[in-house]
Amino acid sequence: MTVATANPGTEPAWLQGALAGQRASLARAITAVEENTVDAARVLQAIYPLVGRALVVGFTGAPGAGKSTLVAACITEARRRGLKVGVVAIDPSSPLTGGAVLGDRIRMLSIASDSEVYVRSLAARGHLGGLSAAASRVVDVLDAAGKDLIIIETVGVGQSETEVSGLAHVTVLVCAPGMGDDVQMIKAGVLETADVYAVNKADLPEAHGVIRQLQAASHLAAGAAPAVVATIATTGEGAAELLDAVRQASAARALPHGQERLRRLRKTLETMAAMELERRLQSMDAAAVGLVCQSVLDGRCDFPHAVRQLLGRAITDPQENT
Amino acid sequence: MTVATANPGTEPAWLQGALAGQRASLARAITAVEENTVDAARVLQAIYPLVGRALVVGFTGAPGAGKSTLVAACITEARRRGLKVGVVAIDPSSPLTGGAVLGDRIRMLSIASDSEVYVRSLAARGHLGGLSAAASRVVDVLDAAGKDLIIIETVGVGQSETEVSGLAHVTVLVCAPGMGDDVQMIKAGVLETADVYAVNKADLPEAHGVIRQLQAASHLAAGAAPAVVATIATTGEGAAELLDAVRQASAARALPHGQERLRRLRKTLETMAAMELERRLQSMDAAAVGLVCQSVLDGRCDFPHAVRQLLGRAITDPQENT
Repeated sequence: MTVATANPGTEPAWLQGALAGQRASLARAITAVEENTVDAARVLQAIYPLVGRALVVGFTGAPGAGKSTLVAACITEARRRGLKVGVVAIDPSSPLTGGAVLGDRIRMLSIASDSEVYVRSLAARGHLGGLSAAASRVVDVLDAAGKDLIIIETVGVGQSETEVSGLAHVTVLVCAPGMGDDVQMIKAGVLETADVYAVNKADLPEAHGVIRQLQAASHLAAGAAPAVVATIATTGEGAAELLDAVRQASAARALPHGQERLRRLRKTLETMAAMELERRLQSMDAAAVGLVCQSVLDGRCDFPHAVRQLLGRAITDPQENT
Repeated sequence: MTVATANPGTEPAWLQGALAGQRASLARAITAVEENTVDAARVLQAIYPLVGRALVVGFTGAPGAGKSTLVAACITEARRRGLKVGVVAIDPSSPLTGGAVLGDRIRMLSIASDSEVYVRSLAARGHLGGLSAAASRVVDVLDAAGKDLIIIETVGVGQSETEVSGLAHVTVLVCAPGMGDDVQMIKAGVLETADVYAVNKADLPEAHGVIRQLQAASHLAAGAAPAVVATIATTGEGAAELLDAVRQASAARALPHGQERLRRLRKTLETMAAMELERRLQSMDAAAVGLVCQSVLDGRCDFPHAVRQLLGRAITDPQENT
């Protein structure tokens, strides 16, 4: 394993470029942490002193609600305000496009050529340590590279999805009238996890009903009542109000920079520790593992004890302590 | 933590009932391993000597292909052959119904009252150690309880989904004509992971084209060419041929019972070890973790070293060695 240099003065040019937000260098740094290449440790070492300044916002909602278009509208509005923007797009319902829908929208807009907007699509499968852990590291690189606003776009369904949304400081649930699912989502408590509801396609006649339902539901929330914002993503209407609502929701929960940095570094260290354990378990001598298994099957060893034995062996195995 | 009794003679009545396939007891044992309750270690201890006999088959495919109906038809056919059947249904695209569609189909059929068919829906989120690990433990309980055929139903999309399909000995991809996605799936290589293709709704005129495409694609597969089976789930046509194709595909890859048992026990022990590490990391003294984090931020400690430090502390922390 490559040992990261601790002295920032010795960082390679591409890594310095990434921290300065240069597009090609940033792409290389993100790939390193996403795929856990030999450069990953070096990148992680360099970014964490700088992590913890960006506002991370999750956009979630069923396909068809206009989520990607609304994200694009919010990017345009954020750029108007001078904010640098990073986007991490994940859509497991569409492994074939892998977030390409957002890519398409982006290309349609002026932000495509904007060097201060960086969009990364993560495939929904095949990440070491899981999708959520990979997304977390990518968010941290974008944060260190000076992005002020980082948007995570997911469809908000499934376990990985829930975990990814959990990376955001503020979660926006994008609804649209006439999708039927909305009422069911309220019933199922899916809405409870959102901080802001965006009712998109607000120019449709049924929008008022959805807004009223959500306002009623929001008063049932345990903490502060989530804001309900009407948007028309295709024209950009409501994007400014939506960003304001996000900013307001974030104020209550923002940690001081130092604490946020520590929290995110700890999270990544814990993920890497879990990945390291997995690697060691898989490379463990089959005969040794076989003995532990056999003692469980024979009834000589109980399950919790076998688990502790396996853990202990994985950590103290001399080949690994180099 | 409850220490499992190693002597099978001392197992409580409900656990003995579960191993005998009694429905209510089986439900209790499955809940224990799914949710990792205090009974989990005791159940795991009891089942692994019996695990490794069942054939585990994954049914995957986009919503709308008639997957659940086809699963129901295959259950009916399997029962005709005298096989005991377990089903684990997971549909993350529908967290609201949580596999209820299959439940509905089942209720429509005679198998609803069949005591040798056991159906369990797993929600797509919120499992300790992940959905795939929970599904794996549930499959192992069904196996130990004497089920001959265990069907895992997923939509086959997303990371958790791929992992869940990976639990099966044989994977069936359910397609249907007129869904457009089929050609894209072939292109994307999604089909490569399937052992058998079921073309459902084979009475539709477009079915022949899909079958031809799949037969052409199957010859490009690296190993044995996957079988292509035409089915009409609503009438049960093709279910017998599908089960035959599954049986044939499984023959090539079946491990002897002892090896299969060891493989699955090892997998569960590794998952439990990862969960135990996570638990220990989360309960670790914040000040101690803070010191490790600070040394990374200061550049005094590189990332790989910090990860090893954290792992070592988690394992040797005296409070945990009780």
